This record gives sequence, structure tokens and C-alpha cells, in this order.
Amino acid sequence: MKKFIFNFNTKEISSFKNSKNILGGKGANLSEMTNLGFPVPPGFIISTEVCEIFYKNNKSLNKNIIKEIFKELKKIEINLGKKLGDKKDPLLLSVRSGARVSMPGMMDTILNLGLNDITTIALGKKTSNFRFANDSYRRFIQMYSGVVLGIENYKFEEIIENYKLTKGVLLDTDLDEDDLGNLVKDFKDLVKNETKKEFPQDLSKQLLGAVSSVFLSWESNRAKVYRKLNQIPSTWGTAVNVQSMVFGNMGNDCATGVVFTRNPSNGKNEIYGEYLINAQGEDVVAGTRTPQYITLKAKNESKSNEKSLEESMPKLFKQLVKNLKKLETYYKDMQDVEFTIENKKLWILQTRSGKRTSKSAVKIAVDMVKEKLISKKQAIMRIEPSSLDTLLHPTLDEKSKIEVIANGLPASPGAASGRVVFSSDEAERLNDMMQNTILVRIETSPEDIHGMHAAKGILTSRGGMTSHAAVVARGMGRPCVSGSSEIEIDYSKKIFKTKNYEIKEGDVITIDGSAGRIILGEVKTIKPEMSGDFSKVMSWADNYRKLKIRTNSETPADSKIAREFGAEGIGLCRTEHMFFDEERILSVRQMILSKSRENRDNALSKLLPHQRNDFIEIFKIMSGFPVTVRLLDPPLHEFLPRNSNEILDVAKSLNLNSKDVETRISELHEQNPMLGHRGCRLAISFPEIYEMQCRAIFEALVECKKRKFKSIIPEIMIPLVSTEAEIKIMKDLVIRVAKEVQKEYKTKVDFLVGTMIELPRAAIKAQDIAKHAEFFSFGTNDLTQTTFGISRDDSSKFLNDYIENKIFDIDPFISIDEGVGELIEIASNKGRKQNKKIKLGICGEHGGDPKSIHFCSKTGLHYVSCSPYRVPVARLAAAQAELKK
Amino acid sequence: MKKFIFNFNTKEISSFKNSKNILGGKGANLSEMTNLGFPVPPGFIISTEVCEIFYKNNKSLNKNIIKEIFKELKKIEINLGKKLGDKKDPLLLSVRSGARVSMPGMMDTILNLGLNDITTIALGKKTSNFRFANDSYRRFIQMYSGVVLGIENYKFEEIIENYKLTKGVLLDTDLDEDDLGNLVKDFKDLVKNETKKEFPQDLSKQLLGAVSSVFLSWESNRAKVYRKLNQIPSTWGTAVNVQSMVFGNMGNDCATGVVFTRNPSNGKNEIYGEYLINAQGEDVVAGTRTPQYITLKAKNESKSNEKSLEESMPKLFKQLVKNLKKLETYYKDMQDVEFTIENKKLWILQTRSGKRTSKSAVKIAVDMVKEKLISKKQAIMRIEPSSLDTLLHPTLDEKSKIEVIANGLPASPGAASGRVVFSSDEAERLNDMMQNTILVRIETSPEDIHGMHAAKGILTSRGGMTSHAAVVARGMGRPCVSGSSEIEIDYSKKIFKTKNYEIKEGDVITIDGSAGRIILGEVKTIKPEMSGDFSKVMSWADNYRKLKIRTNSETPADSKIAREFGAEGIGLCRTEHMFFDEERILSVRQMILSKSRENRDNALSKLLPHQRNDFIEIFKIMSGFPVTVRLLDPPLHEFLPRNSNEILDVAKSLNLNSKDVETRISELHEQNPMLGHRGCRLAISFPEIYEMQCRAIFEALVECKKRKFKSIIPEIMIPLVSTEAEIKIMKDLVIRVAKEVQKEYKTKVDFLVGTMIELPRAAIKAQDIAKHAEFFSFGTNDLTQTTFGISRDDSSKFLNDYIENKIFDIDPFISIDEGVGELIEIASNKGRKQNKKIKLGICGEHGGDPKSIHFCSKTGLHYVSCSPYRVPVARLAAAQAELKK
Repeated sequence: MKKFIFNFNTKEISSFKNSKNILGGKGANLSEMTNLGFPVPPGFIISTEVCEIFYKNNKSLNKNIIKEIFKELKKIEINLGKKLGDKKDPLLLSVRSGARVSMPGMMDTILNLGLNDITTIALGKKTSNFRFANDSYRRFIQMYSGVVLGIENYKFEEIIENYKLTKGVLLDTDLDEDDLGNLVKDFKDLVKNETKKEFPQDLSKQLLGAVSSVFLSWESNRAKVYRKLNQIPSTWGTAVNVQSMVFGNMGNDCATGVVFTRNPSNGKNEIYGEYLINAQGEDVVAGTRTPQYITLKAKNESKSNEKSLEESMPKLFKQLVKNLKKLETYYKDMQDVEFTIENKKLWILQTRSGKRTSKSAVKIAVDMVKEKLISKKQAIMRIEPSSLDTLLHPTLDEKSKIEVIANGLPASPGAASGRVVFSSDEAERLNDMMQNTILVRIETSPEDIHGMHAAKGILTSRGGMTSHAAVVARGMGRPCVSGSSEIEIDYSKKIFKTKNYEIKEGDVITIDGSAGRIILGEVKTIKPEMSGDFSKVMSWADNYRKLKIRTNSETPADSKIAREFGAEGIGLCRTEHMFFDEERILSVRQMILSKSRENRDNALSKLLPHQRNDFIEIFKIMSGFPVTVRLLDPPLHEFLPRNSNEILDVAKSLNLNSKDVETRISELHEQNPMLGHRGCRLAISFPEIYEMQCRAIFEALVECKKRKFKSIIPEIMIPLVSTEAEIKIMKDLVIRVAKEVQKEYKTKVDFLVGTMIELPRAAIKAQDIAKHAEFFSFGTNDLTQTTFGISRDDSSKFLNDYIENKIFDIDPFISIDEGVGELIEIASNKGRKQNKKIKLGICGEHGGDPKSIHFCSKTGLHYVSCSPYRVPVARLAAAQAELKK
Repeated sequence: MKKFIFNFNTKEISSFKNSKNILGGKGANLSEMTNLGFPVPPGFIISTEVCEIFYKNNKSLNKNIIKEIFKELKKIEINLGKKLGDKKDPLLLSVRSGARVSMPGMMDTILNLGLNDITTIALGKKTSNFRFANDSYRRFIQMYSGVVLGIENYKFEEIIENYKLTKGVLLDTDLDEDDLGNLVKDFKDLVKNETKKEFPQDLSKQLLGAVSSVFLSWESNRAKVYRKLNQIPSTWGTAVNVQSMVFGNMGNDCATGVVFTRNPSNGKNEIYGEYLINAQGEDVVAGTRTPQYITLKAKNESKSNEKSLEESMPKLFKQLVKNLKKLETYYKDMQDVEFTIENKKLWILQTRSGKRTSKSAVKIAVDMVKEKLISKKQAIMRIEPSSLDTLLHPTLDEKSKIEVIANGLPASPGAASGRVVFSSDEAERLNDMMQNTILVRIETSPEDIHGMHAAKGILTSRGGMTSHAAVVARGMGRPCVSGSSEIEIDYSKKIFKTKNYEIKEGDVITIDGSAGRIILGEVKTIKPEMSGDFSKVMSWADNYRKLKIRTNSETPADSKIAREFGAEGIGLCRTEHMFFDEERILSVRQMILSKSRENRDNALSKLLPHQRNDFIEIFKIMSGFPVTVRLLDPPLHEFLPRNSNEILDVAKSLNLNSKDVETRISELHEQNPMLGHRGCRLAISFPEIYEMQCRAIFEALVECKKRKFKSIIPEIMIPLVSTEAEIKIMKDLVIRVAKEVQKEYKTKVDFLVGTMIELPRAAIKAQDIAKHAEFFSFGTNDLTQTTFGISRDDSSKFLNDYIENKIFDIDPFISIDEGVGELIEIASNKGRKQNKKIKLGICGEHGGDPKSIHFCSKTGLHYVSCSPYRVPVARLAAAQAELKK
């Protein structure tokens, strides 16, 4: 006969292949612990298969199942020496749902089942606490009536409220033993009124009613919606767990507590937790009584006067420690354990992997390797890569009191405090006076780079996680909160408003870029520590990963940081960032405003030495590693002045008529600059720009050779290619300049020419483009924009609606979308087919996202490139991806 | 032995499978005519295979080849009774290149070969024209020296110039027989000086030198570049044609002329052409003498006094007519023939398909079917679909004198004259006063629709062939010249400037949208005639085509025109165009400016009856045919006022604070509106908009049923879908509204729900989207924009550079690009795999482009949709596509 009901201690369970499918997640875990010999309150599981039978059987339990249920109940009674309905020592039960995967709060639960008029008295006597017994009964009636009998909860609440009014008290706790007894009566009357029957005193009926209700709750509306949203098949069904209740509040030989097998905040290998004598689990959490420490050491360290468990119940403490040790050894991870002591007997109610801070995650993983509890591979898999981010940036001191005045997107991690400024110039001015500032802008543009550098943090009211502000801030390692629609900025009045505050220029605020919080005043921050454990985990990861990790950087400072974080070259050096430097921007503008090739050449020749020096510095820092240089990408109008004062200045400096400058600016205006005259399209129109840039690269190479720096091979990257002809023409240009430089300096230069794949057409026609490209670098930011037809600068207006409607599980600018991923796969396959040796990498923001890194590894790319501060995250994620293969 | 040299009259030639590959295009044609018995001056072909041998043989002709050449030469001499170098009747030859495909002007040609000191005298005697003989010799030395001996041309020109200076004359024609004799001497001296040898008097050497030079010119730089640009393999090589020269200027029994087998300007089946007695071919073309008509009829009709060929040489005229008849019957097409009469002997020098006007193309095709010369299928293939365009629009009277003041893109065909206006309001004002206007704008926006309707033509200085102005103008059938960068518009002064002109508001100009010309003043136009021949060809096309042809239309007027042109339903009804109507725009603005759902619903309820009426009218016109209604697509800010006066007006009308209106406008501003909050993204945020639109559609259906109109099934199209979730949510919305309406009116409504595929992600994930879509309509405009990452509004800035650099053969917004095409194929295949019954069509601008229609046919789409005026073009192109399969 097929088994539908399983006692927790059924031996075979552990050999089940898919025990969770049959027993549900909760049941499988309880059963596992029971079988391992942990003191788990006894119970049994009605399997998920019964759920299906239940629905087929006209939503009722069949005779065989009922028979089995009572057979298993008997075993519990024998085990505990308690009996359902016993007048002296009544057994109480919990009846809970338990699907394959956790569906928190979506299905029904009934506690304290087994109470009726008689057993309530027995419970009162046994605990010497009739108030507790009456309150338990009152709660049980309310819960059971709601779940099983379908009586709306508010009707019970009304009775309580009226009773309190009549008695003239405010709180439930003001009600005494007799009051609660009266309420029990009133509740029973309500049930009779509503159902025309007495509240069931027959405890067997109570049990079967509860079991049926849990099965019925599988098809409740909220469960259906939850399943739909989480793509859980309705065929799975739920199991039902029937378990004996234990009480930590039956006297002073009782207790209840929560304990971690290691210290979750610093990772130290010491038991850490809290407990209360003669209490229920919720008392520990609720904060009505101050919990006591578990260990003597913790008690002493925090100078508490209350006895630790180690002191008050030394024997049980030892039992607990032994159990904790066993649990950790078995699960090979730090455990978060709930326990109850009922009349000197220890019960383990639950165990699960404990949440921990990023820092302790690293420490615990390293320690467990030392303790030979886990392997290095397991240690690597144990750390959530994105959690490393917080280790690399200053964080808020969580002990400080803070007042959050608004929220935004956590665009760039870290915390910073400073005076509010509304312009980049002001940020720079105050920075020169050694004052910390937070730059607050509606949105930022490339003209704000100097201000973003000068400020300690950036706050914008518009733009998503991949807006200009967010991308640049992450690149610079500056904390940033972006797209905070809760603040309203008024540049003219130099203020910003939140719902309740008005912040003036000069006021001090703190931003928490890891959580997207905007906080009033200054908050202490904690500096990051690159501990020995951290670097140990990194070196293990490096041993396993195959993906190379490069960085996106165009400044010596960033390049140095990236190298310290372990970057193996530069995957994206955005040369346009070099154009905004104060010394250069005028020449850039001269070039753009020129009407003749001659004048343009003149301006470019002024830029050449600057670019050359940039490259020399970067090549030196990256000695031995590849450096991918992307030639000029953004549309020219981004470099032009915006307001009339600036226009006047520029006109004066360049000896031009300001009207002409305005005309040129309006000529260069674009409806959709993202899709405009940029990237290699600029170089098709004005090849001299790329010629200058290539010359700067090659002359830098020659100079590095002269100075005997370790050689690097630059990878010259052509942006925004969509056709074979474009890459062909551009490659010819690069090679032509290389030959000129080689001839002039009589020295050979080595380099690669490749392209960004950032347009769907480039992906689709990759076989043609690969004829001329030695590498592809997937520009996933733009590729996502064009594949979806979504501008990331504008997406903040509807992204929330999209997340709310579950159209996006996750912002596709954060993790590579599967449609975009398909294009990357198509391009990779077509590229490799044409050119076996083609180098493949990605350089979009996704290069630092663990999920995307897994995708890159699976797709067979050679490297990912990310902002300097994401390099360690990427190193770890790349190792995990490899280990998962 | 393998044959390398072929006499024109070699019988086997016609049985060669790929005669052009061996003989070259020119040689194959001359040989074909010779074999058919036409009087072609005799000659022979040195095959393309010799070219390869020539290059392998160190760029020289081998002995066997040389031997064969002289063997074939002998045959010509016998045939004509003339001999190379003969002192009385010398044979003169032309030596020309002839590759597989025509490479006009890229390789070398030598005429009059066979002249030396002796034969020149013979030629003088024979023609009684020593000036002609000396001039021929002089020209021959110059040509031969340039091509074979490598002496630069300018050196000969210098000698001529100096000679004229010394003699004090200006023109070459002022030089007499003796002068030319002197020049011959000077030329020969130059040759001796440069080559250290005499100019070759040995005519065999002349011949071999010329042949070698033609082979060498296959590898000349210009030939190489031309091949590269046109993807002609260098392995093909060229053939060389050696042919005897004939002269129409050897006396009064000589003549030369050009003749068409039918009248090319009206298509009538009558010989039409011109000739001159005692003249060379170039005299007919050059216009120094007025040519005479070939037929008596033509002479009489044009009241000429000069004798027709029919009168002056009646016998030869008859011979010519017989030959023309034979040529047309053989080639089954109207021929353009060059002939020469040398001493009463008729020679046919060339025949080719004659160029003709669109109107005559149609007439000739229909006539030839009647004459049983060609089949209906052939007739359909004979007409260039895009040429029909000119038949459907007014055209400039080509007899008028015109002054083109600037050029732009031929954005919408047809011609129109009117007063220049710079605003849509002014166009409307003048239209109300019955004045014709040309609306001149930097670019147009949806707010200009009323002005574009009111004006007779549209001229813009920005935007490409698919800019707003161009698309809307084509849809309306208004002529339009777009993106004319040669004009500079100054709105404030109400003028526009060209290089040489300043045009003020009120000045009259004419635009020619078929050729992109802007013309000063008014020019007569000719109205189109939809002749019987035209409709006959259309009905033949309809018999063969399988693709359905729909139209893009949202007004009753356009829908009627499209029906008249044969449209089989509407493929794209852009509901937003209905929003700009004066009566409605205020409600639209109210909706957008609303902060509450209630206020928004109120505004929408005002729009509902208007939309319903629109649909009733359109459904009535399209009775029995499908109508695809696209729900609101553009971003909301397109509907908002732009200047401060308008803002004030709107604020007043809606009882709002103008500051609030401004704030809302700036909130709605987008960086890249093309990639912004539009399409179904709007409906995710504000579902009430689509709900209103669906209700309008369904209520219109109910009303049509009530009025007993022939039923139509609307295809409700959701724009800008990129994910399965979007189409799912939208389909649910449509069905919900349908159920509501069905319940309210107690009547069933039938409809389909589908989506535009206009984003790469939608194409890539088509299998998921097809789960919910009953049809796909490819929105190739937006799909091209996103696939390439090119905004068509901004592309005019670099499109020219792209065409010049041959990156685009053709603007991808005109003909479907192959990368975009791959996405369409992917989507079609994935869509069909998921849903066999899925309807597929396209509704972008490409729907009216013949090349794209071929692609759609090949890809298995069910219909194309285009603007009303392109419907006949599409019908013909669809038939051709089917016939080519």
C-alpha cells in the first residue's frame, strides 16, 4: 500500500530522491532533523499527494487517510505521554501548510489545536496559569473559526473591543483570567450564532477540520496569485504538518530562545543568542521583556545583570551547545536555531542558515575551511558576491540614530555626508576649501564630471540605476542615490523639498548609496577594511575562475584602484571622459565649432599631447595587461556649453560670434541623441578625430617602449558599429595611422582592432563584422536600450509600473535580460564561426552583476569588465559560475 | 584546340550557355545581332579567357593568340573588301573593352585604328575631305598615345592651345585642313621626344598594342575601385572587341541616326527618331545641326521643312523599318537603335531596350500583349513599380522653363506651387482664403497636421525620407521635399535663404517632390490620368499576386482614396492622429494634465464619442475588409502645447495654473522620446486610455451592426510590445472591455488582438509573444531605428556620409535592410511555430517599397500595408514578386 502519511522519524525519508516534492519543504526539514536524532517535537506529514486526492475526492479526506492520521497521532501520544483531550496532560497540536517551496503567509496555520472546555482547565492547572490557558483557548477559537468555519475575524475583534469599553480598559493585557473566560463564552456564542452549531468540542473533528482547511487554502485567491507571480504550478499541492506543541512558559523550568552557532555580526566562532525563562517565542522578539544572553561571555561583555543560560540552566546549556555543534557540522553552515525548554526538556523547533553581515560571511567561510568543515569551493559558493560591495565602501555606523527624510535608488554603494550644493562649480569651490559636499542635481550630464569628482556623494531626483549619475558615480566609487522622486529640486531658490522637510544649500545631509536613503545631518561612517580573510577568499576564487576580470577606467586613479582590487586590464577606457578636462574642453569645442577641416585639425593637434600623456600613464599602470581603448563615442553636442553665459565665454575664447556658436549648437541638437550622430558615425563624417586618437595611442606605445615599461597591447575599440563597411573603414583608418607612426618613429607597434557589439544589427550580422574585428566587446547598456527600445535616461518614468506589474522581474539594465542574452549568444556564435580566435568580453554595467557574470561564463566569453569597485564582486561571481558548471 | 577568338558571326555562339561570361556583354550582343542576320559591321571578340592568359603570360599576348587575331582580321578584310593599310580603301577598326557587366568609362577604347601617314591620305581622298582625315589622324595619335604609349593627354592639349594662340583663333573648328596637318606633325614629334621612337606606322603593331592596352586597363586603378564598389570579381577579366569602323560622313549617300521602335514619350506603336545626312553620330547628339525626322508622319506633325529619311532614302528607310521590326520581335521590347548608312549601305551599330516614360511603359506593355508579342506575365514584369508613382500625382510640365534654387530629398512625389508660409496656422488661414501655400518648416511635428493638410506642399530643411514630414506627406498624398540642407530658415524674420536667393513669406515657389527640387515661382503642372491601360495592368497584377495590399489610413478621405486605388483593408490606423483634431485636443490635454484618475476618466469620456464616430465612418468605408487599429502610440508630451502663449491658453481653458502646466510639460520631457514612455508602456501606467479606445472600437462595431453595414473584423494592435507579459496584460484588457460592451449592448463583437513587432526583443522572443497575439504586424520604421540604433529624425546629419562611403547602398528606411530582414524572418518563424494561424503583415513605410515587398513575399507574410498613393505600386510589385518565385 502506498504511504501518504509520514512520521517525522520515518527512516526511509532521508533516502527519498525528492523528499521536498512529497513532504514539502518544512516537513522535509523537520523530518531530517528528527532522523538525525535532534529533539524535535514529534509530528507527522500528510504528503502533497494527499492534496491532489483531497481535491479529486470532492474536497474531502477519504477514510484510509483519516485512519492513518489517527494511527500517527497515537504514536505521538505514546512518544510524549500526553493525549489529545486528556484531562490532566492534554496534547496540543499545530497544523501547518508546507509546499515544495516556501510561500510565506499565503496558506493557513492553526496553533493550539486540542483545546476545548475541558482541556483548557487541564492546561490551566498544569501551567498554574489560568489566564494563559483562557487566552490560548480564546485565540484558538478565533483562529479556528476564521480558518475552518469561515467566520470573519472582525466580529471577534468587535467583541473584544466592546468588552474593553465596558470594562473601561485600553489594552488586551489589562484583561485578567476571568475577563478572558468571559470572552471565551462570548466567542462560543458568536460561533453558535453564525454556524447554528456549538464550537466543536470533539477534538478529532477539530483536527480533521484543520487539515482540510489547510488543503483548501492551497486554492485560496492569495495563494493562486502568489503562485502565478512566482510561477509555481498549481499541480504541486501542499503537504500538511501536524506537530505537537511545546511550551516555554509552563514554569521556571521552561525557557525559549533564538541562537546562532556563530556570531552573525562579526563571524567569530562563538555561540551567540538570547533567551527568556518562562516565556513564549514571541516574547523574545516582541521586546516586552529584555532577553538574556545565552553565554556567560556575552553576558559579561555587555555587562548585563541577568543570568545567562549557561548559568541558569547549565545542563541544558551544554545540551544546546552539543546540538548546535551537531547541526552546524551536519548542515556545514552557520545555523540560526529556535529552541524551547519545556519542563527541563530541550526541543529544537527550527534550524536554518543564519543571516550574517558581509564581513562575517567572509570570516565564517574562511574559518570553516580552516576547520575542515567545508572545502574552498564550498566557501566560495557560500558568499553572496554582491554583498562584497558593502565591504569595499564606507558604511553607515548602524549604531547611530538616523532620520531618513526621503528614499531613492541605491545607485552606487557607500555612505557620505556633506553640505548640499546644487551645482558642480559650487562643489568644486567648496572642495578647494576642504569642505565635504553632496552634489544634488535633477540629473547629471558629462559637464558635471568635475563636480562629481569634487563632491563626496551624488543625489539626483531623476534617472535610474544606470543613469549618467549612477554609472559615473559607480565608476568613481562615489556613493550615489539616484532617481529620488520623493525630492523636488528648485535650482533658482537653491532648495530641495521632501514631504516634510525643506533643505537649503549648505545644509548637511548624509546619503546611503547602498540602501538608497537620504538622511538629515551628519552620520558616522565606518571605513572599509580589506581583511586577510577577504584576500584569502579572493585568491581562492582566482584559482577556480576562468573568466578574466577587467575594469572600466579612464583615469590613473581609478586604474590604480582597479589594479589593487585585482583587475587584469582595462576592458573599457572611455576616451571622451578625457575630453572634459578644463585644459582641453576649449580645444574640443574649437574642433566642434570649426567649419573647416584645417581649423579642426588645428584644434585636434592641441588635444593630441594630452591624450598621449593620458595613455602613457594608464599603459604604465596596466603594464603587461590589455587595455581596451574606445574611441570617441558621444554626440558632439554633449561637449558644448549650455547656458548663455558659457556660450559667451566660449565665443570670446575662440574669437567667434556668439550667434554663430548658438546656431551651431542648435544645428547639433538631436531629437534622440542616443540614436544619433555618435560613435563611429562621427568618424565616418570626421575621420580626423579618430586619427588623432589613434596617433595618441600609438605615440604613447612608442614612448612606453622608450621608457622600457612592460609592454601592453592596446585593443582599439570602434563604438556603435552596425555594418561590415563601418568596421572595415575604421580598421583601415587605424592601420593607416599605425603605419604612419611606425614609419615616423621607426618602431613597430602591436595592437588589435575590434568593435563594441551594442546594436541589435551588429549582433545579427556578427559574421560579417567578425571578418574585420579581432575582438567583440558587448556594450550591454546600449544593447539593452536598443533591444528593448528603452532609453535608460527616461525609463524611471515607467520602470516602477513595470516592476509592479511583474513585467520585469529585475531591471534589465542591472541583470542581462534573456532576449538581450539571445542576441549576445547569436553574436558570439556567429563571431566565433567566422574567426575562431575572436576575443569576446562585455563592458556594460552588467559586467559587475553576478547573475550576468554567470551568463557570460555560460556563453563562453573570455572576460567581463566592470567599474573598479565591482572587481572583487566579479572575481567571486566568476569563480562561482565556473564551479556551478 | 580551344577557341579564344570568335568572329561575330560564329554560329555556335548563340548556343553558349554563358556567352556573356566568355564574350563579354558587348561582344555577346553584337554577335547575337550578327547571327540573326542584322547588318552589323564585321568584327571579332578576343575572349575574357585571353585576359587571364595575358596576365599569366607576363602581360603579353602569346603567339597563338596573335596568329588567330590576324586570321580573324583577314576575314573582315575579305568581308568588306577593305584592307588594313590599304592605300585606296583602308580598313579602320575600333578596339573596345567588354566585360561581363557594363563598366561604363572604366576601361580603354581606341577608335580609328588603322591610320598612319599613308592611310590618312587615302581616307582624305576617299571622303574628299582632307580636313576630316587629318583631324581623325590627329585624334587617333592623341588617343593611342594616351592609352598605349602612356603619354599624358595635357601635353597634346598644350600643343593645340599654343597653335591656336599663335594663329590667333579660339575654337578647334577654326583650324583648317593644313593646320590639322601641322598638328599631326607636332604630335608625332612629341611622341618621338617622349618615347624615343617614331609614332608606330606599322598597323599590325598598332592593333596588338591597342589590344594589350585594353587588357591592361582591366587592372587600372579606376577599374579596380569600380569593381570593388560594385563587387565585381577581378577574376572575371574583360574581353576585347575588334570591329570595323563605318562612316556616315563619307558623302551624301551616307547618313547616321538614332531611332526608337515605338514612341518613347507616349508609347504609340510608331517608329520615332532622328537622323542627319553626311554626318557622324555625335553630330546628331551635339545639336550643331538640326536633326531631321525619320518618318514623314513625324515630319508633318512637327511642321518641319527638312526631308524625312522616308523621303530622302526611301529604300534604306524600308530596310531600316524591316530591321527595327525584326529587332523588336526578337527582343520583345521597344528598342533604341543606332544606325549608320555608309555609301547606301545600312549598318546597325547598337540596339538596346529603349528608355520610356512611365505612361508609355504601361501603354507599350498593354499593346504588346494585344499584339501577342509578350504574355501578361511579361507585361507585368516589364513595368517598374516605383515608376507608377509619377502616374498618380501631378507632375511638372517638363516644357516649362524652371529655375531650381535648391535641392532636397524627394520625400513625397508630385509637384505643387504656392505661397511660402512658415506656420501651420498661416497655411490654414490662407487655405480658408482659397490661396495655395507651401508650408516651409525646419521640421514638422504632429501639431502641424492641420497645416500640412491645408498646404499644397511641404518643404523642410531637416529630416530624412522617413521624417515626420515625409511620412505624413506621403500618407496624405501631398508633395514634399524634406531635409534640404541648402536652405536656411529664419522663423523670426519669416524668410528662408538659399545660396543665391532670399525667399520671403508670401513669395511663390514650386516644389517637385518626385525629384527633390525647389523652384522659383509658379510652374505649370500636369494632372494624372488613370488610363484604361493602367487599370488593365493592375487587374492582371491582381490575378497573379498572393500578398494582400492594405493601406495606412486614419481618415475617411484617405480610406476612400485607398479603396479607389484597390486597397484590401487597413493595415495601420494610427489612432493618435485622431487626437489632434481641434475639438478634441483640449480633452486630450486635460487627460494628460490630470493628476487624478477621476479627472482623467472625465477627459477620456469626452473623447469616446469622437473616436467611436471615427471608427464607424472608417468601418463603413472598409466594409468587408479587415481594419487594424493601433492603440495610442506616441509619448504624451507630443500632445502638449509648446510655446508660452499656447500654454497660457490651455491653462485658462482647463482652469489650471500655467505654472503647473509648465511643470507637467517639463516632467514629461524625455531625453530620447523614441525610446521613452510610449506605446503599450503608456497603457501599463494608464490603462484607462486603451480602455476608452477599445470601448470606442466595440461600440462602433455595435453601431455598424445596427445600421447593417457589411461586417468588418477589427484587428486591435498593441504597439511597442517587447515582452510576453505586456501583450498578455493588454490582451486581458481588450477582452475585459469587449465583455463589458457585449453585456451592455447584448450583442457579440468579433475581433483579433495582436501586436506590432517593432523592437528587436519582440522579434527575438516572438515565440512567447505569439502565445497571446493573433497577428504580428512588423513596424519596420521603428524596427529599423532600434536595430540600427539610428533615429530617423536625426539621421539626415550623417546619412549622406553613409551613402557616399557606400556603407548604405540604400537608405534602410526606404528598403528593408538585410539585418532587419533577418529579425523579421526570425520573428515570423518563431511566431508561426507557436501559432500556425498567426497573421503576418508589415505596416511600416517599407510596405510601399517594391524591393521590400519582394522580401515580404519571400518571407511568407500575408499582407503589406502602405500609404494610399502607394497601393498600386504595391499591387504591381506583389505580382512581380510572385512571378519571380
